[in-house]
Amino acid sequence: MSMECAQLPLAGITVVDLTRVLSGPYCTMMLADMGARVIKIENPDGGDDSRQVGPFVDGESAYFASINRNKESIALDLKDAGDRQVLERMLATADVLVENFRAGVMEKLGFTWEDLHARYPRLVYASISGFGQTGPYRARPAYDMVVQAMGGLMSVTGEAGGNPARVGVSIGDIGAGLYATIGIQSALLKRVQTGLGERVDISMLDCQVALLENPIARYSATGGVPQPLGTRHPSITPFDMFATQDGFIVIAVGNDALFGKLCDALGRSEWAQEDRFATVPARNEHHVALKACLESRLADATTAEWEAILEAAGVPHGPMNTVPQLVSNPHVRARGMILEIGIGDGKALQVAGNPVKFGSTEALSGVRNPPSLDQDRDRLLAEFGG
Amino acid sequence: MSMECAQLPLAGITVVDLTRVLSGPYCTMMLADMGARVIKIENPDGGDDSRQVGPFVDGESAYFASINRNKESIALDLKDAGDRQVLERMLATADVLVENFRAGVMEKLGFTWEDLHARYPRLVYASISGFGQTGPYRARPAYDMVVQAMGGLMSVTGEAGGNPARVGVSIGDIGAGLYATIGIQSALLKRVQTGLGERVDISMLDCQVALLENPIARYSATGGVPQPLGTRHPSITPFDMFATQDGFIVIAVGNDALFGKLCDALGRSEWAQEDRFATVPARNEHHVALKACLESRLADATTAEWEAILEAAGVPHGPMNTVPQLVSNPHVRARGMILEIGIGDGKALQVAGNPVKFGSTEALSGVRNPPSLDQDRDRLLAEFGG
Repeated sequence: MSMECAQLPLAGITVVDLTRVLSGPYCTMMLADMGARVIKIENPDGGDDSRQVGPFVDGESAYFASINRNKESIALDLKDAGDRQVLERMLATADVLVENFRAGVMEKLGFTWEDLHARYPRLVYASISGFGQTGPYRARPAYDMVVQAMGGLMSVTGEAGGNPARVGVSIGDIGAGLYATIGIQSALLKRVQTGLGERVDISMLDCQVALLENPIARYSATGGVPQPLGTRHPSITPFDMFATQDGFIVIAVGNDALFGKLCDALGRSEWAQEDRFATVPARNEHHVALKACLESRLADATTAEWEAILEAAGVPHGPMNTVPQLVSNPHVRARGMILEIGIGDGKALQVAGNPVKFGSTEALSGVRNPPSLDQDRDRLLAEFGG
Repeated sequence: MSMECAQLPLAGITVVDLTRVLSGPYCTMMLADMGARVIKIENPDGGDDSRQVGPFVDGESAYFASINRNKESIALDLKDAGDRQVLERMLATADVLVENFRAGVMEKLGFTWEDLHARYPRLVYASISGFGQTGPYRARPAYDMVVQAMGGLMSVTGEAGGNPARVGVSIGDIGAGLYATIGIQSALLKRVQTGLGERVDISMLDCQVALLENPIARYSATGGVPQPLGTRHPSITPFDMFATQDGFIVIAVGNDALFGKLCDALGRSEWAQEDRFATVPARNEHHVALKACLESRLADATTAEWEAILEAAGVPHGPMNTVPQLVSNPHVRARGMILEIGIGDGKALQVAGNPVKFGSTEALSGVRNPPSLDQDRDRLLAEFGG
């Protein structure tokens, strides 16, 4: 493998990162994991808010550590003239500026798109905010929980007939971080053609709407209000979690041929011949009866026994893993999805790896630890201090 | 605005799309929404499986329509010599090939990365599969439900103390589609430097691990097994849904200053002075008591009344919207997040828009309807038929 091929794809891209907490830092972690240089600008008064969010290891935030690897840190006061000059010198050579202040804050600080674009025409300027740079709610603050609720995701998550539930991860923030990464990369690709940077405007609420694509289309098609369904798929059956003799197994059968294989594997081939189970629409209509049939048979063996039988039969299935089971899973380990980074007094913290795998680059084995606040000050001032 | 600036960022990029159902089509919808030309190759025997998934409008699948706008369609039999020649001629000029067959299927069809890379060195070759192209589970089939369960997301979603719940959208598929989009764009950016295409290998399970970043770090830091928490945030309090006089409101307070503003807005400034509520760790420890305090006061007014009070106070909050409330929300409408496309016998279907907004391009007003199976055959054969 040549050195060139082994280089990470975003090598050579420099990102000036004004983001805090989660949505922005998740975006810039993705960019850093793929080879971009990310210079994290933190406020001198404690830095990124998430440094104060637990749990802590020897006083260091695991929340912060999980999403800030591979970044440099410098503390700058964006209201101080000297510090602003340092930032400006960074922007003069950077490819991307990312910020996730509330809409309007960058303008108050004097960093408008119009002005920065005039001075640094190649700079991509990406903003992530709760509601975007336009629209009636643009000045409102937001957090993950707010956009999960306003965006409808909570209204379709949880037990059937029960209370709405929050998704157990901050998909309001992480979703915005992913769409922001896509927007930034699109703008960089466009710049190859035009030579000009672009304004990217990501609204966390917009991103929730985008994730709701199927409930929105279902509502529009039928007029029915999408509800929480527990573990069942809204329009494909059987696509659910089922009790076995000793636990739970998910079975995901998306077409009639697979349903036949499932019935054969269970020793109940006759079910596939019944009119009420013969097609996807029929199985959707009779999902309660079908679940009862399936669980009556699944109770005869353990999850591990059914896993072996369904694997041999080629029927999509899987156990429900807890986080400890996930972290120790041999496939997850083989894919390099659990990284260890240093935290606190020489301890190791396990964090999720980068799922964007490239055939010609090795797993990111040389991961750099999350920065302490202002750790790269001297080197960065030597480079950008004027 | 010049014509050049108004062009969508991926204009000029051609994607040959072998994907079916959701993860791959979501990825290629993103690429198409941002201006790429997407040629959807469907099997002649009914096309994309999701054309058979309900609900239907005049016999057309709303599931399919929701994620296949802006694409062209041609039916090709990948085992037929003539049809394979058409595909090869497309690949000779395309920038990206995307497929989401089970790992190994493309190799059986004779389309290996090594071979295609040798013949079309600039082609980016992206695969989305349940478990990736490497690792012990690589040959297993998977669906959204399977990776949500195996990936730990179900184990942290649902009511506190209750059963695990599936996220109410197919985040196993959509997550993979988003990371695949990021991988493809990274590879296109690298190609600008190297002139060579890249192999992108996306595993749906890997993507779930990536979304679990916070539960994994919390488990590693504390040893505690992350559990479903209903609507509460795991490490920030108050960050939850609360009952009001007539419904629910989400309040999301991430730091002590905001907590002070919340207490002032509720007319209960003294709460912020109590030791048990003074810091994030203290509020986390006493979250049950704090929720009781807050709901005792929130019961005095309606959700709408509290919204007005909290908005004036600058405290992040929001109502819990159902899908109908979301679709009719004035801010969501103002952001162009609800598109109408044609379906069936001249009917309109509302679908989610693209959340990646660019400052210099208008909202994608000229959205093209999802294709009927093979609708672009004649034109595509004229272009690629040899």
